[in-house]
Amino acid sequence: MGAAVHEPEVIRDKAAMRAWSRRLRAEGKAVAFVPTMGFLHDGHLSLISAAAVASAGPVAVVVSIYVNPSQFAPTEDLATYPSDFAGDIRKLAATGVVAAVFCPPDLYVRGSAGQPPAAGASRGAVLCLEEDGGHGHETWIRVERLEKGLCGSSRPVFFRGVATVVAKLFNIVEPDIAVFGKKDYQQWRVICRMVRDLDFAIEIIGSEIVREADGLAMSSRNVHLSREEREKALSISRSLVSARTTALKGNNHSQQIKDQIVQTLTGAGGQVDYVEIVEQESLTPLERIDRPAVICVAAWFGKVRLVDNIEIQTPSS
Amino acid sequence: MGAAVHEPEVIRDKAAMRAWSRRLRAEGKAVAFVPTMGFLHDGHLSLISAAAVASAGPVAVVVSIYVNPSQFAPTEDLATYPSDFAGDIRKLAATGVVAAVFCPPDLYVRGSAGQPPAAGASRGAVLCLEEDGGHGHETWIRVERLEKGLCGSSRPVFFRGVATVVAKLFNIVEPDIAVFGKKDYQQWRVICRMVRDLDFAIEIIGSEIVREADGLAMSSRNVHLSREEREKALSISRSLVSARTTALKGNNHSQQIKDQIVQTLTGAGGQVDYVEIVEQESLTPLERIDRPAVICVAAWFGKVRLVDNIEIQTPSS
Repeated sequence: MGAAVHEPEVIRDKAAMRAWSRRLRAEGKAVAFVPTMGFLHDGHLSLISAAAVASAGPVAVVVSIYVNPSQFAPTEDLATYPSDFAGDIRKLAATGVVAAVFCPPDLYVRGSAGQPPAAGASRGAVLCLEEDGGHGHETWIRVERLEKGLCGSSRPVFFRGVATVVAKLFNIVEPDIAVFGKKDYQQWRVICRMVRDLDFAIEIIGSEIVREADGLAMSSRNVHLSREEREKALSISRSLVSARTTALKGNNHSQQIKDQIVQTLTGAGGQVDYVEIVEQESLTPLERIDRPAVICVAAWFGKVRLVDNIEIQTPSS
Repeated sequence: MGAAVHEPEVIRDKAAMRAWSRRLRAEGKAVAFVPTMGFLHDGHLSLISAAAVASAGPVAVVVSIYVNPSQFAPTEDLATYPSDFAGDIRKLAATGVVAAVFCPPDLYVRGSAGQPPAAGASRGAVLCLEEDGGHGHETWIRVERLEKGLCGSSRPVFFRGVATVVAKLFNIVEPDIAVFGKKDYQQWRVICRMVRDLDFAIEIIGSEIVREADGLAMSSRNVHLSREEREKALSISRSLVSARTTALKGNNHSQQIKDQIVQTLTGAGGQVDYVEIVEQESLTPLERIDRPAVICVAAWFGKVRLVDNIEIQTPSS
């Protein structure tokens, strides 16, 4: 297909989405799903490429675009999360491999008896259980251990919101395969665990981080970085690569490696949220890098919180 | 079919169960599912009858038999929960309408690094998240408002365990329809809410309570009642019928009606866990019975905890 332009079908209704998916599967296609919050960049497009070749047989790729309110805390950037629907559709068409785009207006039942949820437009509204008279959304999926630590410490409702909306999307799209980016490493592990524990019949593929030429991990939020902040933010990927080199050379003391990263980020003007070295599947902190590990970082540059990570597959003993 | 004996297919493996269900649906049948914990009585058989006629077209009925450890607290009666597998299969065959029975040996991933979970056989083992090295089951579904109150007050992990195992069974059996008994009224409402909130493509049917000739609601736990306790336990259904009569005659003061029920149960030698009058869908307590309500009761007779309820559809104004 290559550069061919193939306009994807835009679907807004849950029932229509499910019917579409069942029809394609009945035709013998594997349905491969890439959930996104839109404002697509090359990182997303790499997930779509992975989805398109995820099965030996014919594949139908579905991309969802939905900014999930339930994973944002009231203090977070839901209202300013970037969007560009027309641009997204253009990029998806240009891939030549996306068959459908699912863009639901809202995925949550709001209580009929309550006030309109919070002030402002629905984009800025945070789901609230207390004001809806007992009839609004109230079911949440908790991956109780993996949701703690790392991003879960500073964003306590984040993974609850992610797991819940992904389960909803899985039940609507009914995919055979779903692709998640390893840039959001903890999110990927949370979804893998949820799929295993709740017996979803879905193969989860973790797709490698896509970086700008200078090393910055691609993120929709990068657009909010000033030129200067962006330059400083390069300290994240540089410090991670340097840390991996150190570890592979034989220094497996996590604390020393973490201290070095914190020093680099702080020296560059970043404000560190966390630097952790954890086991790859359980995300348990490691004192020594003596098994497959991942170094995870979250740091603020200006008003932008960035996350990044690097896996260490062949540690020193 | 009537009294014809049709031996159901016994399936123990998750993947085989899912493949069976997908095959039958591909053949144009609606898959109707009745989850049970076994030790089947006429209440279960009424759920199966409801499942068999739940769709206008052809239906394939699947019954699961699985005593779910995660809905029992350590102090509860998991170890003594009654079972009779051979008898269950005989009864299911005699219905003539059950196509498959799903009897998994265990549905939860136990941590590889941990101890065998608690002492004793697996029937007595309670799921523990803390001892498994980070790899065991840790995903739980919470229906946060409905799981509180009523049975949720005295059984704090119960609905978490029920919602989670039902979601797992839904993802394995992939039914079009599932039938739950209204005897476990709060459980039925929790499942309805979970299905709505998580977008399961499943129609939930609530099936009416089946009673013994003398009024006792059928329950697998009734077998543990002595003859004397059983006689005393009739006070539950009697007091509920009497309460409904009172309400329909025009006394809509919940507190007076509840007091009357508590008095009757206590007078009969029962120990009341709760008596509540709540709105039917949200289970919000009602001071006056001025909309569709349900009176819910849980009480101990000897060592047996019994639940029962009665709906009031046409209240006085």
